[in-house]
Amino acid sequence: MTLYMNLAELLGARIEQGLYRPGERLPSVRSLSLEHGVSLSTVQQAYRQLEDNGLVAPRPKSGYFVTENRSLPALPAISRPAQRPVDISQWEQVLELVRASPHPDVIQLGRGMPDIESPTLKPLLRSLAQLSRRLDMPGLYYDNIHGNEALREQIARLTLDSGCNLGPGDLVVTTGCHEALSTSIRAVCEPGDIVAVDSPSFHGAMQTLKGLGMKALEIPTDPTTGISLEALELALEQWPIKLIQITPSCNNPLGYIMPEARKKALLTLAQRYDVAILEDDVYGDLAYTYPRPRTIKSFDEDGRVLLCSSFSKTLAPGLRVGWVAPGRYLERVLHMKYISTGSTACQPQLAIADFIAEGHYQPHLRRVRAQYQRARDQMSDWVTRYFPPGTRASRPQGGFMLWVELPESFDTLRLNRALLEQGVQIAVGSIFSASGKYRHCLRMNFATRATPEIEAAVRKVGETAYRLLAQDSDAG
Amino acid sequence: MTLYMNLAELLGARIEQGLYRPGERLPSVRSLSLEHGVSLSTVQQAYRQLEDNGLVAPRPKSGYFVTENRSLPALPAISRPAQRPVDISQWEQVLELVRASPHPDVIQLGRGMPDIESPTLKPLLRSLAQLSRRLDMPGLYYDNIHGNEALREQIARLTLDSGCNLGPGDLVVTTGCHEALSTSIRAVCEPGDIVAVDSPSFHGAMQTLKGLGMKALEIPTDPTTGISLEALELALEQWPIKLIQITPSCNNPLGYIMPEARKKALLTLAQRYDVAILEDDVYGDLAYTYPRPRTIKSFDEDGRVLLCSSFSKTLAPGLRVGWVAPGRYLERVLHMKYISTGSTACQPQLAIADFIAEGHYQPHLRRVRAQYQRARDQMSDWVTRYFPPGTRASRPQGGFMLWVELPESFDTLRLNRALLEQGVQIAVGSIFSASGKYRHCLRMNFATRATPEIEAAVRKVGETAYRLLAQDSDAG
Repeated sequence: MTLYMNLAELLGARIEQGLYRPGERLPSVRSLSLEHGVSLSTVQQAYRQLEDNGLVAPRPKSGYFVTENRSLPALPAISRPAQRPVDISQWEQVLELVRASPHPDVIQLGRGMPDIESPTLKPLLRSLAQLSRRLDMPGLYYDNIHGNEALREQIARLTLDSGCNLGPGDLVVTTGCHEALSTSIRAVCEPGDIVAVDSPSFHGAMQTLKGLGMKALEIPTDPTTGISLEALELALEQWPIKLIQITPSCNNPLGYIMPEARKKALLTLAQRYDVAILEDDVYGDLAYTYPRPRTIKSFDEDGRVLLCSSFSKTLAPGLRVGWVAPGRYLERVLHMKYISTGSTACQPQLAIADFIAEGHYQPHLRRVRAQYQRARDQMSDWVTRYFPPGTRASRPQGGFMLWVELPESFDTLRLNRALLEQGVQIAVGSIFSASGKYRHCLRMNFATRATPEIEAAVRKVGETAYRLLAQDSDAG
Repeated sequence: MTLYMNLAELLGARIEQGLYRPGERLPSVRSLSLEHGVSLSTVQQAYRQLEDNGLVAPRPKSGYFVTENRSLPALPAISRPAQRPVDISQWEQVLELVRASPHPDVIQLGRGMPDIESPTLKPLLRSLAQLSRRLDMPGLYYDNIHGNEALREQIARLTLDSGCNLGPGDLVVTTGCHEALSTSIRAVCEPGDIVAVDSPSFHGAMQTLKGLGMKALEIPTDPTTGISLEALELALEQWPIKLIQITPSCNNPLGYIMPEARKKALLTLAQRYDVAILEDDVYGDLAYTYPRPRTIKSFDEDGRVLLCSSFSKTLAPGLRVGWVAPGRYLERVLHMKYISTGSTACQPQLAIADFIAEGHYQPHLRRVRAQYQRARDQMSDWVTRYFPPGTRASRPQGGFMLWVELPESFDTLRLNRALLEQGVQIAVGSIFSASGKYRHCLRMNFATRATPEIEAAVRKVGETAYRLLAQDSDAG
């Protein structure tokens, strides 16, 4: 990373953290130059980058100021799901979402697709092509069940950034994070067991519980700090919970980062009640602040945390390469991995190992993180502009998903149906609840660059919501 | 296929089927030329190919004769497993096998690895490389949950050869046959259910039953005609069996092809007792005879057969592309697929679709089928030559696996341990039984070309077996 990018990232992080407040004057170019021991032009470059990112604005003769807060939509309230274990429904809605193939005539705001057109991914494609031309054809072999060792070494290195201290032997490569989640859940739970989940929660994890015959206990969740520890403790008192399944860093769908103290407190709770934690960190590397947040796994001392992740959100989902650090459940996870897919496709593993080893991963992350952060602001602006008054929205601290809450009576299934005729797809809120709550909510993807087409699509969502609300009040 | 190859295949099939017997004189070049309307030189080319394959030998001035039978090892007897449902053990032995990475110092006779160095695979690698260079990066997207449509169209076409009439909508692409098996089993069965299996049986399928909490009921199986229908019917009378799981075409590990009449009779039994059939056809395209055997699925009228296969044995396992035609269980399989891996890696799917569409699949199959058939004869010869007297061996009709039976008291676990020190790995027989039977058996792979190194490895297996037997009788 060049000097100016370093500095821009540092200043950006301070603004994000609120150390410099909206409208506040930032340090002068000269003082920053002295403070950081860099040239004046480096500081100027850093400020220009922050300006590009929309975080600062210059005022003639006065220096740089933190951009004034736009009028952001209000945050959703803390969720209040049913406080008892339920069987999971909503498969039909999930199937409708995942059945859709990429189609030029449909703007898919509903899928969890990162920007795969970033030029920083080029070395990965080059590596895939080179592997195909190699005479020893490494991509055609079965690899061993743990996954490619070179890749596991690189993953172990990456996890240092989240505070972990893992070796290649602690890791199992999986076919996407899906397989990491399903092998982990099956390693810990039996059919009929109760799993506590944050709420709203990733539909893939909940459908896994459904498929394996487990029950979900949805725990109230705050849109900025995550799962309510108080509610979780009450639930642990009351029910024989086997596993806590959460996405604490750059949550899907809410985008929050659970504060470190709360992560530690959650682990303490899990220890006290002797339950395992499945920590889904698939968006963790996409936190807008640097360094990225620590994982709960990084505080784990007795191997009760199964850390699941993948390269589907950071690089590309079509590669289907994920991983799990299963702690004390390693042997069980290996068995579940064996029966699930035997092993994971080799060539993508080798290409990703090359990509990281050659130093392409961090520059790629820096680029897409900055892009997603700008896109979040843009998307929030559009929601303010185009959605009905009273609409609430999350304020993601990482990743590329916005959670939008419409009035309580609203039905996003109806909205989605009306939108499909207009070539737009959203993710309906009900799939993020075991029991079909959040029908009035929706999730939109802001990973693709903000084009007039995307703006028009978001506008259609907002205007169609308006129209349906007006129909309802006419009928009511 | 050229004319002479066609003719060679036809004659080879007749010899295999016993229409021309060992030592018998084959039709003259002239009469074959007239019968098939081809030139004399075409017939001569066909005979030369059969000679290369070791199937015929010329005698001066007398024409071509079917090669005299070598002294083949005796066939194993019909298996006699325990006639009650059991919990599955043997995971430690399976793990030892699948944990091994390819290693230049170890000759792995134990893995189910095809010959991936065949020049007929080159177009596949070229296609993988081309896909990586395409600007629209099709390999990086999520595909829809059913799998790539172009690939499903090609698979549907291929299944015509086994008598099926399937459309792309009847198929779900999976991450290898493993995922086809596990999603199928989970689509049909609940934990605690009883599954009838052929015996010996593929360890991957049995470990799946174990991982999902099901019980296996091993059914006596004949080494040339497959699962005993009589024993199966008794079992269906006696136990609430939910599923019959078998590999009827080019069985793993025994190599038999179940006769068509028995396949039909099995389906009738399944209908009568209303159970589902999981038909593992992963080696079916590698039958030495042409046309390849029909699947049970091809006779299925009410959607009770789940046909599972993959390109792991015909092309390369590292691609991890399999598929299932789940019949009436399609929706359930889709759900299980979603929770297992979400979707399958795109690029290998696209490359395989190209490979088949461009006409490379059948020539590749022809080449490897002929190679495996020669290698089977070679491997059988080596077993006759190097193994202790009384050793029995299967006579595979397809695929690349030989099943070897040593005296009843023999322990192949001990043999395997002794062999590993010598750089040779075999698959121990006990992993092919739910309850750890077949400890005196082993499975060897003959896919790699017969080199002096391979011969030396097989010789080590035989000689080490000799030595251990001698020790036993000294001790006894």
